[in-house]
Amino acid sequence: MKKLFVIGIGTGNPNHMTVQGIEALQRADVVLVLDKGAEKSDLTDLRKEIVTRFCEDNPPRWVEAESPKRDASAGYKHGVDDWHGAKAAAFSRLVREDVGEDETAALLVWGDPSLYDSTLRILDRMRDEEGLAFEHAVIPGVSSLHALAAAHRIPLNEIGEAVLITTGRKLAERFPPDGTIVVMLDGGAGLDALEGRDCRIWWGAYLGSEDEVLMSGPVPKVLAEIKRLRAACRDRKGWIMDIYLIRQGAAAQSRDRGLL
Amino acid sequence: MKKLFVIGIGTGNPNHMTVQGIEALQRADVVLVLDKGAEKSDLTDLRKEIVTRFCEDNPPRWVEAESPKRDASAGYKHGVDDWHGAKAAAFSRLVREDVGEDETAALLVWGDPSLYDSTLRILDRMRDEEGLAFEHAVIPGVSSLHALAAAHRIPLNEIGEAVLITTGRKLAERFPPDGTIVVMLDGGAGLDALEGRDCRIWWGAYLGSEDEVLMSGPVPKVLAEIKRLRAACRDRKGWIMDIYLIRQGAAAQSRDRGLL
Ligand SMILES: C[S@@+](CC[C@H](N)C(=O)[O-])C[C@H]1O[C@@H](n2cnc3c(N)ncnc32)[C@H](O)[C@@H]1O
Ligand SMILES: C[S@@+](CC[C@H](N)C(=O)[O-])C[C@H]1O[C@@H](n2cnc3c(N)ncnc32)[C@H](O)[C@@H]1O
Repeated sequence: MKKLFVIGIGTGNPNHMTVQGIEALQRADVVLVLDKGAEKSDLTDLRKEIVTRFCEDNPPRWVEAESPKRDASAGYKHGVDDWHGAKAAAFSRLVREDVGEDETAALLVWGDPSLYDSTLRILDRMRDEEGLAFEHAVIPGVSSLHALAAAHRIPLNEIGEAVLITTGRKLAERFPPDGTIVVMLDGGAGLDALEGRDCRIWWGAYLGSEDEVLMSGPVPKVLAEIKRLRAACRDRKGWIMDIYLIRQGAAAQSRDRGLL
Repeated sequence: MKKLFVIGIGTGNPNHMTVQGIEALQRADVVLVLDKGAEKSDLTDLRKEIVTRFCEDNPPRWVEAESPKRDASAGYKHGVDDWHGAKAAAFSRLVREDVGEDETAALLVWGDPSLYDSTLRILDRMRDEEGLAFEHAVIPGVSSLHALAAAHRIPLNEIGEAVLITTGRKLAERFPPDGTIVVMLDGGAGLDALEGRDCRIWWGAYLGSEDEVLMSGPVPKVLAEIKRLRAACRDRKGWIMDIYLIRQGAAAQSRDRGLL
């Protein structure tokens, strides 16, 4: 049986790799890469660096496929659904052609595989829709959630309280009335929705990498500067990955580096 | 200046350690341990195993303090506040007495330091209330959030949707009307609040360790068995650490191993 390891590689720092992730990578015969978007080559470079560094002796083969593009005209969920289907087909071809029977393939997933990543859904579709037979295991990693909190040296939650993880799109649709919110995948609408709000933000881009940028403070004071920085970063590198935590209400009044 | 590394060690599997965490640990002169509760000795054993394994050549000193007990009679937040204060005092004593000027100490935090852990708050209080001077850095780790998702091979979020991380106590107080919820720190009230609800659960205990137990399915079908297992596990080991993900509504209808 073919075996796939879905390995969380952390968020841009090769040192985020876990021992478990390294061991799985070292057991792999082949690394499969299905990448996308403008950030593509930088993300691929990090994966190559990881493979080079941790598989010195017996490096796995490196197999890359052009990732299908998403049809943005189809509406969000429908578009994503078709896109995942196309990815499942492309990935199945790769596994059929480039992974031998009884071989093991590694899929290197940014951050942790459970958070806003399609790999696990695509594997399910490869099995169900493409009729591919394989075993798979998931190896957890450091997500951008924890990279953000670590960089700012803050807890995600207030004492005994909840944390909502959401997207920029959803934040803009309906702003939760209170509590701690972590926003990911923000194309800009989420930051726009913060305008005029009395909350505190901890923002970070390219976390873990050499380009890491951090900013935090009361939204009325720092939002404009975050937006400016964000635009400048994106212009310079051609892509951006950022994430932020917001605290509303009483929690927003507490000090910058944590809550009592 | 004294330097403290707050290192996320993952959730019970020494192989969850990241390269960054290992490097920080290897630079440490001393490991500080302030433990608590019934699970104390098992958690301490894992930390010892990590230090032994990754610091073969030049192991740091091992310094342990009796952790102050929490006053459960004082009401939740007030009790926690006093308790953190007592911990800050105890920990400050440790740092004063056992960490030399220009030495580095490592604090090994279960999972990731940002999630329902008091270490970062306590460090703030050591600086503010105990007048202790030190630098500190936080090294992110694999949290039980991602360990749970990896063990079940599921994404945390549905496509483009939010995820609420909360506690058993808060779930019992007010059950969110929809969406995906991850419940941590459940003394039992959270599972009780699931009784009779039309949702799907993915449950895991001792994730990452040799005692890992998993169960998933529709709540009406599996809840009783989860409660039974949970009680049996706790009886056997003397403590339990468990976490679960719930999907409500349409999402609960989708298949066991993920969502289309
Ligand atoms: C497609 S999702 C993948 C998330 C990833 N699986 C994880 O665990 O972090 C991409 C989003 O994650 C966040 N993100 C990932 N890596 C990041 C980084 N290094 N710095 C800041 N944000 C990051 C951003 O919100 C970005 O829009
Ligand atoms: C005090 S909190 C610490 C969480 C930790 N900082 C983390 O990142 O996972 C303890 C709670 O985390 C969850 N947890 C931690 N480790 C776990 C494990 N190995 N298996 C299941 N749940 C775990 C449980 O919900 C437990 O009640």
